[in-house]
Amino acid sequence: MHRNRLVEAIKNKGTYLCVGLDSDLSKIPKHLHVHPDPVFAFNKAIIDATLDHCVSYKINTAFYESRGIKGWESLERTVAYIPDTHFKIADAKRGDIGNTSTQYAKAFFETLNFDAVTVAPYMGSDSIQPFLEYEKKWTIVLGLTSNKGATDFEMQEAGGEKLYEKVLRTVSHWGNPGNLMFVAGATQAEEFINIRRILPEHFLLVPGVGFQGGSLKDISEKAMNKDCGILVNVSRAIIFAGETENFAEEARAIAAQYHEEMKQYLR
Amino acid sequence: MHRNRLVEAIKNKGTYLCVGLDSDLSKIPKHLHVHPDPVFAFNKAIIDATLDHCVSYKINTAFYESRGIKGWESLERTVAYIPDTHFKIADAKRGDIGNTSTQYAKAFFETLNFDAVTVAPYMGSDSIQPFLEYEKKWTIVLGLTSNKGATDFEMQEAGGEKLYEKVLRTVSHWGNPGNLMFVAGATQAEEFINIRRILPEHFLLVPGVGFQGGSLKDISEKAMNKDCGILVNVSRAIIFAGETENFAEEARAIAAQYHEEMKQYLR
Repeated sequence: MHRNRLVEAIKNKGTYLCVGLDSDLSKIPKHLHVHPDPVFAFNKAIIDATLDHCVSYKINTAFYESRGIKGWESLERTVAYIPDTHFKIADAKRGDIGNTSTQYAKAFFETLNFDAVTVAPYMGSDSIQPFLEYEKKWTIVLGLTSNKGATDFEMQEAGGEKLYEKVLRTVSHWGNPGNLMFVAGATQAEEFINIRRILPEHFLLVPGVGFQGGSLKDISEKAMNKDCGILVNVSRAIIFAGETENFAEEARAIAAQYHEEMKQYLR
Repeated sequence: MHRNRLVEAIKNKGTYLCVGLDSDLSKIPKHLHVHPDPVFAFNKAIIDATLDHCVSYKINTAFYESRGIKGWESLERTVAYIPDTHFKIADAKRGDIGNTSTQYAKAFFETLNFDAVTVAPYMGSDSIQPFLEYEKKWTIVLGLTSNKGATDFEMQEAGGEKLYEKVLRTVSHWGNPGNLMFVAGATQAEEFINIRRILPEHFLLVPGVGFQGGSLKDISEKAMNKDCGILVNVSRAIIFAGETENFAEEARAIAAQYHEEMKQYLR
């Protein structure tokens, strides 16, 4: 998906919500377990219910891999079901030496038709370059993550700046704001002004709102740029809003709340 | 697999070779393509042929994921086929926030019965802890990798030391030499004395010998400890040694050469 199309979708719909399909089999409503593929049945209902309120879906590959081949089948069905109007992210956090990253890029951009994949920066340029070589696809590199462990390395001093700052600054030269985004956790709101100083133009994928406690207001005020420039992901707080047969309606209601709030910030 | 068993296997057989099953469908011999699962047929033949000369197999998940469900099937069949005498490594380079890393750990330690999985350190302690919670399983954390991109961040200054040194030093306290190994690339031989100063006891998984040009002699001299303490991985130079119907014999011959050389260094 071209950047212009993403920005248009955000502005036309008034939402920069990404719904995270962390569809843990053990947490989906009991009545769905009669389906041959309960996770896909769940995802399909969630997608149908939330489509109007978001511009993107993010599939967390771990929740699918943990179920082996069956999980991979749910993943393939789900990504095929998401309409092309929506930006499809594989949250896979891959990255390896060049010839191996080439295979991961093939997995997510060819075998599965994702628009974007998340990538870890530790191994440097040749671990990221193979993803960037795909036209019309996006590489989303980990910058400052939303978890506690972000203090262990990301926030540590590295040659006169924080490691995550070095990562943002260095990696930003390997691509451009049309094929490269960065992960910046919503729980790190106090760093967002700093992040925008380093990356005024890039889109940021922002997890950590909802269950993890990040404030949508805070990060919207601090991180938005003229193109909006943020995709805010909410997973558990939306998809597991309800546990009964009304789960999709309940998910839709929460997504609609985020949508309403986002409309205000976009004005 | 318990550390004692791994050390015994190395000393009894006189080899610390790990064969890397980077089994790219496009590179396996033509005549195997008639099989319903050509990659598994290839791996099975390679495993049968090299079993006597190695103590470990490493499956590079990227080469399987790139083929979608079919690839995942080849992966499951392959890991199930490797006998329990051999240390089974998933080279997956995973790592995410806690609840997600828990799912990755489940994928590789439960759904697939690997002994070990490689993990990226960038996201810190809670991204690694869920792997370490499995008894009798191993977490292999990226330290200093074998690729060019290692200079971008791993070798950069980070608070008075190199980033990879900080990673080795910090992560070593999160587990112990019985459940934690580190990746140290063979192309970085000049750093091995330094690595051993930080980690005198831990096993190191050493990729980069063979196709990538690292010297087995160099790293064996510099990195061995009293328990051997290294697993040297060779992938392409062994598995793609031959292209004809004799491919497995040719792979065996190369593995046997490494075995002979390793016997000398173990003395």
